[in-house]
Amino acid sequence: MSKELEEKFIKAEHVFDGQLLKVRKDTVLLPNGKEATREWIEHPGAVAVVPILNDGRIAMVKQYRYPMGKVTLEVPAGKLDQGEAPDKCVMRELKEETGYTANKIRKIATIGTTMAFSNEVIHIYVAEDLVEGEACPDEDEFINVEKYTKEELHTMIKDGTIDDAKSLVAILMANL
Amino acid sequence: MSKELEEKFIKAEHVFDGQLLKVRKDTVLLPNGKEATREWIEHPGAVAVVPILNDGRIAMVKQYRYPMGKVTLEVPAGKLDQGEAPDKCVMRELKEETGYTANKIRKIATIGTTMAFSNEVIHIYVAEDLVEGEACPDEDEFINVEKYTKEELHTMIKDGTIDDAKSLVAILMANL
Repeated sequence: MSKELEEKFIKAEHVFDGQLLKVRKDTVLLPNGKEATREWIEHPGAVAVVPILNDGRIAMVKQYRYPMGKVTLEVPAGKLDQGEAPDKCVMRELKEETGYTANKIRKIATIGTTMAFSNEVIHIYVAEDLVEGEACPDEDEFINVEKYTKEELHTMIKDGTIDDAKSLVAILMANL
Repeated sequence: MSKELEEKFIKAEHVFDGQLLKVRKDTVLLPNGKEATREWIEHPGAVAVVPILNDGRIAMVKQYRYPMGKVTLEVPAGKLDQGEAPDKCVMRELKEETGYTANKIRKIATIGTTMAFSNEVIHIYVAEDLVEGEACPDEDEFINVEKYTKEELHTMIKDGTIDDAKSLVAILMANL
């Protein structure tokens, strides 16, 4: 017994248009014929990458996440520039955040992070055959690169040290 | 060589206070002494649950996710009510969305979904020893319950049918 689930767009309101966040409040028609409002964040999409070094270790990034109020350990990641293809973006973000250039990348998943209130999707890649170089983060971006074995990563997943959703999916789906 | 990473709060601005979304724009002091703004979503936190039925199948929910513009297959989940403990919330959401009551729950992870722009954390549980009952979704919530074997879930993870971040983490960390 499958109920009708789809909600139909009636009208849009742009309630906040910030530097980072675009907030919309749409009016929709529910499956039961009633109207409801849906508040959500328009997001350009992003990439994340599991960079596997030639010695088998994985390059991770440590950074301060202001909304969480703490320093986190994550896989390198970043937002798509306007019109940018995900596989170009992953090469750019990997270089910017870690300094590495990859000779081989493959996409392993595309995920939605917060489907209840955002259209953000993250394209997840594995990068291999890496060549070291200079990192070049954005001016307002403060990042430390750290390298871990797959055993260390799995320990930090189990004990909660790694608790970022995209990083968990990336590491668990990369079949390290 | 570990750089200083922390950003310090200077002042807050509440730029949108909706029914669902609370949007903040804070001014912060960066590690390099400069100021920057941080736009982010205040979120009450949520729970998600992998309900393992007595026959070994897992109860999943199908619903329309307006920001994504599509019907998704996810583990049951929902936001914390004000002051609600996660283990109470998980029992409530499981009952509301699927009708099941669990005699046994255990927490397997707490994750951040979008650390760059939200403080949302999701407490992930496994629920077992389930007793069937009537679902009682919110008035504006349209949900179909479907049951899958662990093999079917892993196939749907590999082929991208399941692409919701919290559901992927929940299924992959539940050791089904």
